[in-house]
Amino acid sequence: MTDRDKILLTPGPLTTTLRTKLAMLRDWGSWDSDFNAVTARVRQSLLRVIHGQDTHVVVPLQGSGTFSVEAAVATVVPRDGHVLVLDNGAYCKRAARLTSLMGRRCTVMDFDEAQPVSPAALAARLKADPSITHVVLIHCETGAGVRNPLEAVADVCQAAGRGLIVDAMSSFAALPIDARRTRFDALIAASGKCLEGVPGMGFVFLRRAILDGCAGNSQSLAMDLHDQYVYMEKTTQWRFTPPTHVVVALAEAIAQFEEEGGQGARLARYTRNYETLVQGMARLGFKPFLAPDVQAPIIVTFHAPADPRYDFKAFYAAARARGFILYPGKLTTVETFRVGCIGAIGPNEMEQAVHAVALTLQDMGIGSAAPAPGV
Amino acid sequence: MTDRDKILLTPGPLTTTLRTKLAMLRDWGSWDSDFNAVTARVRQSLLRVIHGQDTHVVVPLQGSGTFSVEAAVATVVPRDGHVLVLDNGAYCKRAARLTSLMGRRCTVMDFDEAQPVSPAALAARLKADPSITHVVLIHCETGAGVRNPLEAVADVCQAAGRGLIVDAMSSFAALPIDARRTRFDALIAASGKCLEGVPGMGFVFLRRAILDGCAGNSQSLAMDLHDQYVYMEKTTQWRFTPPTHVVVALAEAIAQFEEEGGQGARLARYTRNYETLVQGMARLGFKPFLAPDVQAPIIVTFHAPADPRYDFKAFYAAARARGFILYPGKLTTVETFRVGCIGAIGPNEMEQAVHAVALTLQDMGIGSAAPAPGV
Repeated sequence: MTDRDKILLTPGPLTTTLRTKLAMLRDWGSWDSDFNAVTARVRQSLLRVIHGQDTHVVVPLQGSGTFSVEAAVATVVPRDGHVLVLDNGAYCKRAARLTSLMGRRCTVMDFDEAQPVSPAALAARLKADPSITHVVLIHCETGAGVRNPLEAVADVCQAAGRGLIVDAMSSFAALPIDARRTRFDALIAASGKCLEGVPGMGFVFLRRAILDGCAGNSQSLAMDLHDQYVYMEKTTQWRFTPPTHVVVALAEAIAQFEEEGGQGARLARYTRNYETLVQGMARLGFKPFLAPDVQAPIIVTFHAPADPRYDFKAFYAAARARGFILYPGKLTTVETFRVGCIGAIGPNEMEQAVHAVALTLQDMGIGSAAPAPGV
Repeated sequence: MTDRDKILLTPGPLTTTLRTKLAMLRDWGSWDSDFNAVTARVRQSLLRVIHGQDTHVVVPLQGSGTFSVEAAVATVVPRDGHVLVLDNGAYCKRAARLTSLMGRRCTVMDFDEAQPVSPAALAARLKADPSITHVVLIHCETGAGVRNPLEAVADVCQAAGRGLIVDAMSSFAALPIDARRTRFDALIAASGKCLEGVPGMGFVFLRRAILDGCAGNSQSLAMDLHDQYVYMEKTTQWRFTPPTHVVVALAEAIAQFEEEGGQGARLARYTRNYETLVQGMARLGFKPFLAPDVQAPIIVTFHAPADPRYDFKAFYAAARARGFILYPGKLTTVETFRVGCIGAIGPNEMEQAVHAVALTLQDMGIGSAAPAPGV
């Protein structure tokens, strides 16, 4: 048994470089200027990724990405606001749940989880219901892996004069997002996703034009992004103890992101990972759940093989024993599993992953991974 | 200029061992059984620290300690509850602020920041106001460094039939806390304090007897400790992406805590650190803000020297250049600074810190660090 690190084919936490992890071998005072300089550098770099220097600020927040989504809704939406969540998957449902729970009026607009949300349907809905103040969109719904039409949704919201909150957790730094042409009030991502840092913090881009109006919206002290922003601008520090090691790892991950060539280069690598994966899995009989034209090259949902010898737990364990960590499906009606294309991995690792899956099928006595007819 | 790590004499983040940091050189799948086993081990170890296996459960939470304090209040106090905060410092005021902000009725009972809170005064107040449902106590108020009388306050709350929420951020794992004899509904601490892990997560001990009654109290999804608990028991996983590297570093820090001899041994080392510091600083003329009998051996507040050449920023920078990170004061009326006694350091480091301060005073031309007469 070797002790070699397994490859994480998951939507985060994901495989990071050794260089990123090595940045954590030092302790930092959270009040100290050295650390504050790291925070400032990270914030400047994040703004550049979306070309948001002139239009937005960015506010980092402790916790997982969901903490930042909740903080964004609490900070941006007034207490008497009305949020419309465009729902085509599990993360949309989570956003709706946290919005209702905090006491904001929330309406869910259902879409097929195998399809992007419809900007035209949204436009009609906003026209029909002027009480809606804000729209929530998940850019890449990792429940199934759908890429939603951010630009078109943003244009509809702008034309209708409504706010837009974008959960870009799984797309930020990989799919293009340009704040100069796409208007959003808040956009959320996290350290342990396509920037390839370690998990432990999120960050929210807030549109400068709405910043002052956000004061006092949040019922949560810890999640008040306006308060966090004002304090950080004044002191250069975080309000409450930052996850110092996570922050310095993110700074190191961002340096590598920039050296690689930024968002374009990262998308190119993930696209190669995606193509290598899907082509290889097709040779084994696997069929993706989504049509290629709506699939983001971030995470791929595959139908479970129809062969009765297939069992996800056994399949997962056997692939794991060969060094690859797969991810369970998150769809309610169809049996699936997911494979992430993101992290500090390239086509080599994806080829090896496909090969490990092939050997796993052999072990399980499964001749073809084809799904049941008709799916 | 050497690149040697500076010693953090701060109340967290603090200096951790290399062994703790080395644990972060691996990536973990948050859905994977290996990682879930680490979470389970950490939770079991935490319960043992307070002998709480029979009476309490422990729920870890992403974010800084303040996130866990807010989560504890939101989860434990019903929406129509009434919280009394025993206030003798800055962290008490923060607890009151987050309680009010989330919409819970909150009353603040003021005490001198140089003195522990009074259990007798609390008893009288609880008798006079039956509407108070919960009391919030900060065990070690790191604003000044006071050790508050946890056991006596707990006894008063139990006798009066009120709930008790304890912020034990800076005391947990150093000062003795015994859940078998001290009754509390919630007790909060964090990874980057006396357990000497890295910052990025907190954890809350909840009394089993009140657990079921906590369902539905929280308006926050991310901070709902009851929901986090139920999910974790069912799946062994965290609800939302955990800070995996922080969790494994905490597991490694706990292993070293247990090897050192647990809470008793840790308190003994911190007490030696404290005595070395205070005796050394006294030789230079420094006077602690608190009387020794109310001082916890966690963080010491010193009066600023009266010498007009003293300036905290210059003092901080000069001590920093010599390898030691001090901490600013947090008192509103008196000029002070603070020195932490906690972290992976011993009397050697404290002797060196005192020597660095002595050389710093020489550099600044300050003959004696004595405070103004009369303080």
